[in-house]
Amino acid sequence: MKHINFADIEQMEQRSRARLINSLSGFKSANLVATISEEGHSNVAIISSCFHLGASPALMGMVIRPDSVPRDTLSNIEQMGCYTINHVSANIYRQAHQTSARYAAEVSEFDKVGLSAEFVAGIEAPFVAQSQLKFSLELREIMPLAINGTILVIGEITHIMVDESGLKEDGYIDIEALESVAVSGLDSYHQTQRLARLSYAKPDKALVTLPIDGH
Amino acid sequence: MKHINFADIEQMEQRSRARLINSLSGFKSANLVATISEEGHSNVAIISSCFHLGASPALMGMVIRPDSVPRDTLSNIEQMGCYTINHVSANIYRQAHQTSARYAAEVSEFDKVGLSAEFVAGIEAPFVAQSQLKFSLELREIMPLAINGTILVIGEITHIMVDESGLKEDGYIDIEALESVAVSGLDSYHQTQRLARLSYAKPDKALVTLPIDGH
Repeated sequence: MKHINFADIEQMEQRSRARLINSLSGFKSANLVATISEEGHSNVAIISSCFHLGASPALMGMVIRPDSVPRDTLSNIEQMGCYTINHVSANIYRQAHQTSARYAAEVSEFDKVGLSAEFVAGIEAPFVAQSQLKFSLELREIMPLAINGTILVIGEITHIMVDESGLKEDGYIDIEALESVAVSGLDSYHQTQRLARLSYAKPDKALVTLPIDGH
Repeated sequence: MKHINFADIEQMEQRSRARLINSLSGFKSANLVATISEEGHSNVAIISSCFHLGASPALMGMVIRPDSVPRDTLSNIEQMGCYTINHVSANIYRQAHQTSARYAAEVSEFDKVGLSAEFVAGIEAPFVAQSQLKFSLELREIMPLAINGTILVIGEITHIMVDESGLKEDGYIDIEALESVAVSGLDSYHQTQRLARLSYAKPDKALVTLPIDGH
């Protein structure tokens, strides 16, 4: 085992350090956040910091760095109060990664990278047409974190669009079957292979493997 | 595409809703948070809500539900000001899942599920011996989120222990080679298969696939 201590971390070259620390949390979700400005400019940006915050109400958090690409995303969310999150599937992971390039604010990443915006009646923000699992959110909170200047954005889920084949009887969505990808570090994309769904854990009871549909 | 609207979500049976909403963020990290109480009781709990918060300082966030199993974890972190995060690898994913059972506070999940606590000089909290990538943190902030009563715990990374084979020249850690697993929903565990590491995205420049070591 290699032991890297606090002084080693502090002395690392900046990009290497970013790669190292970004690898530590484990596999990350790969999502495209899509927004529209008051002037009607659509915007889409990859984000690997979405996380589940609660099921009731249905809340999702994401962390945005003010100096990073999703800065247009953030101002659109502030302006419109709504946005969509769209899973990155294996067939669009390169286009999704390309959205992290620093395009000008008036440029639509949709056009530049070859993704399509799709509008659904009653929802202002665009979806990513190519995505197999996507949902819209209403902004609930924008919370700057004093500790490092990042911004926690919290939204409530309002509509879910999912390829029917992925939705299981017990509510679970088989995101592996929908080919959603995972991210490690800053730039590595991964498909998955299920080990098992496991039963609810109880003391003194052995775990059992569940069928995919949970029954 | 199945369209699930806000009213549908609100009317779902509680467990189905939890499974559905927990599936939406995408693949999640699988980590074991290990702590020790002032009285010397070790505790380990699986958590799928760890997320990268920043590289400089090196910060990690995690969300804890006050009524969930990591409640002992939270009080130990408050008492001691330190904890460790340990990747769940494929060979221990069942033991890791079993830590989510509601054992009494004085019971060590290490003993009950068959994981081993490992102590490193100068670090008070235990590590999980079986984990191939693990790190210690000092507590920086405990932030209750008014919106749903969950608690955001922020720590700064102080020591990293990593199987040498996983650490690449450019700082990236090949967590797939270390067999770290990903989680979907509440109970599904997945191994991964890399699609590619991709170059830093720039406007008007084609992406290239990077070798695993980044060079």
